[in-house]
Amino acid sequence: MHVNDLDTPALTVDLDVLEDNIQRMQAFLDERKIRCRPHIKTHKIPAIAHMQLKAGAKGVTCQTLAEAEAMAASGIDDILLCFNIVGRNKLERLARLAARTTIAVAVDSDIVARGISEAATGYGSTVGLVVECDTGGRRTGVPTPQASLALAQIISGLPAVEFRGIMTYSGGFPEEGYNQAVDAFFRQTLELFAKGGLRAEIVSAHATVYILRDQWPHGITETRPGMYVYYDRMKILQSPATLEQCALTVRCTIVSRPAEDRAIFDAGRKTFSNEGADLGIGLGHIVEHPEAAVYGMSEEHGHADVSSCHPKPEVGERVTVIPNYASLVTSLGEVVYGTRGERIETVWPIAKRGIIH
Amino acid sequence: MHVNDLDTPALTVDLDVLEDNIQRMQAFLDERKIRCRPHIKTHKIPAIAHMQLKAGAKGVTCQTLAEAEAMAASGIDDILLCFNIVGRNKLERLARLAARTTIAVAVDSDIVARGISEAATGYGSTVGLVVECDTGGRRTGVPTPQASLALAQIISGLPAVEFRGIMTYSGGFPEEGYNQAVDAFFRQTLELFAKGGLRAEIVSAHATVYILRDQWPHGITETRPGMYVYYDRMKILQSPATLEQCALTVRCTIVSRPAEDRAIFDAGRKTFSNEGADLGIGLGHIVEHPEAAVYGMSEEHGHADVSSCHPKPEVGERVTVIPNYASLVTSLGEVVYGTRGERIETVWPIAKRGIIH
Repeated sequence: MHVNDLDTPALTVDLDVLEDNIQRMQAFLDERKIRCRPHIKTHKIPAIAHMQLKAGAKGVTCQTLAEAEAMAASGIDDILLCFNIVGRNKLERLARLAARTTIAVAVDSDIVARGISEAATGYGSTVGLVVECDTGGRRTGVPTPQASLALAQIISGLPAVEFRGIMTYSGGFPEEGYNQAVDAFFRQTLELFAKGGLRAEIVSAHATVYILRDQWPHGITETRPGMYVYYDRMKILQSPATLEQCALTVRCTIVSRPAEDRAIFDAGRKTFSNEGADLGIGLGHIVEHPEAAVYGMSEEHGHADVSSCHPKPEVGERVTVIPNYASLVTSLGEVVYGTRGERIETVWPIAKRGIIH
Repeated sequence: MHVNDLDTPALTVDLDVLEDNIQRMQAFLDERKIRCRPHIKTHKIPAIAHMQLKAGAKGVTCQTLAEAEAMAASGIDDILLCFNIVGRNKLERLARLAARTTIAVAVDSDIVARGISEAATGYGSTVGLVVECDTGGRRTGVPTPQASLALAQIISGLPAVEFRGIMTYSGGFPEEGYNQAVDAFFRQTLELFAKGGLRAEIVSAHATVYILRDQWPHGITETRPGMYVYYDRMKILQSPATLEQCALTVRCTIVSRPAEDRAIFDAGRKTFSNEGADLGIGLGHIVEHPEAAVYGMSEEHGHADVSSCHPKPEVGERVTVIPNYASLVTSLGEVVYGTRGERIETVWPIAKRGIIH
């Protein structure tokens, strides 16, 4: 099947670029002897997770319980779930999952740790726990190394859970000085752990952008790159990534040329979201017409200023659009077509399981 | 089943509020003798479309061919599709759909009209066409009444299509003076049509916000309210709608209280999108803690400043969040639970058909 046989909009991933991205990140981390535990929230596709594992990744990272269930169902047996799991139904699901998969879950309070312990006790399984540290991201996480120690000690005394280590989330656009903050927090925490006789097998920090800065905190054992499989326009802003490394694109069709300077294509915010609308970079990049400015999107229409394009796109023409933020495109999509050149080589359903987290 | 038995995040719609919203809009339009052709892109749920029809709506409006197919499959036989349909596959699907459903499709160029005519000729069906007019929205649409006449005349000469009328799209936040612009465009167009012996059975304009301003252009026969079924925080900003009229909510759970002033709940931009982030109104409203400010969202976390809340939300507490923009929540969701009080009365899959448009 030729890529032009797809109805538009269609999500496509260039398999050559995808494979290169996976290999390059793995080699980069192998060289530094840091385990790669890719975050699959970017793609939510078991087949891509297995490509990452085959390249050398040590397990995967998930952001929702449903993602972890989907990865476990595809045979993946080492999962880090970076989310406080709360509520009876989810605790039961987690306890069940832990009976057949090695899973470590981030927690930032004794309430959450005790809930997991009770559920796992009831089910007869063991859940690994890592203490989430707030090293400046100001989202979740315990606020100090002392609080990290206190929670680790509580966990060590609870049944059916096993203390596995620490992790931190960087926040959105990481700032200069961020690595120093993580370094100081981790160093103090690990010192306190050593005095307390606690061993952190998992010491996890950074995502794609910060990984590419090649600055690492004390004691790190593994890292969680996610966006590097696909990249996107926001990652290009924040890192050395290039347009050529963007593996995920949206195939669209020009449906209207209502004015000399305007072209309208058949995908909008319900395909791309409006992520990055505040960055002054437009809402997408049209590969075939790099001079076009995608200045706006309504729900199902993309609006491009084509006044600088020669030739200008025509009604019926197919175009390839690089999104601002691939991870939201994943959540809005259903299926990704893997392409090799102009041929479709594979079709991957996105295992998003709706918003069932 | 009690609403608290749902895993969170879960999309819920208050059926009493939904029914009231539908009845109130229908009565408002009945009084003005303007046909109501609700836009189903807001909900994408056939059962809600049938509630709208039962209340008195004249057919439905769709924004994608896949939405139209889903509505037709549920037995709805009068559809306006406000999108230029382009490309061989989609033209075939449209021609097939027209064989079993009365469908009118918006077009703004002779290229698109001719494509539809050819496909319908090949299939032996007839597709209704309405000329889309750009009355200031600056998206799609012919730019002048003269261009509207010219396209209507071309359509009238084509086989297997039938000229049905005109429509216009208002653009996002409609400005003062917008109705006068539509009025002038429609008045001139309908005068030209009358001289040319053309009859516009459909004269369609306005969506929820402008409908509630109660200003109408010359010749209008029908209108396309969409958001009125659910409302949301952005509609409250733009219209007399109130928080109590917001039917769609997202049930969430507080998963972290990492600081005195901060509460984190278990849904973020992959549930809500970040629509309205630029409006200075935060990213959602927590019904149980109206003083909380939802100041940020990461992909799966909602961040609330709870410094003004007394009492403050606790880990494990369930909260009800009114979204900024319901239509994107629909596209990110899979299932909506219909609630009556605290009981779940029905479960509706969202017929989004992925991004297959």
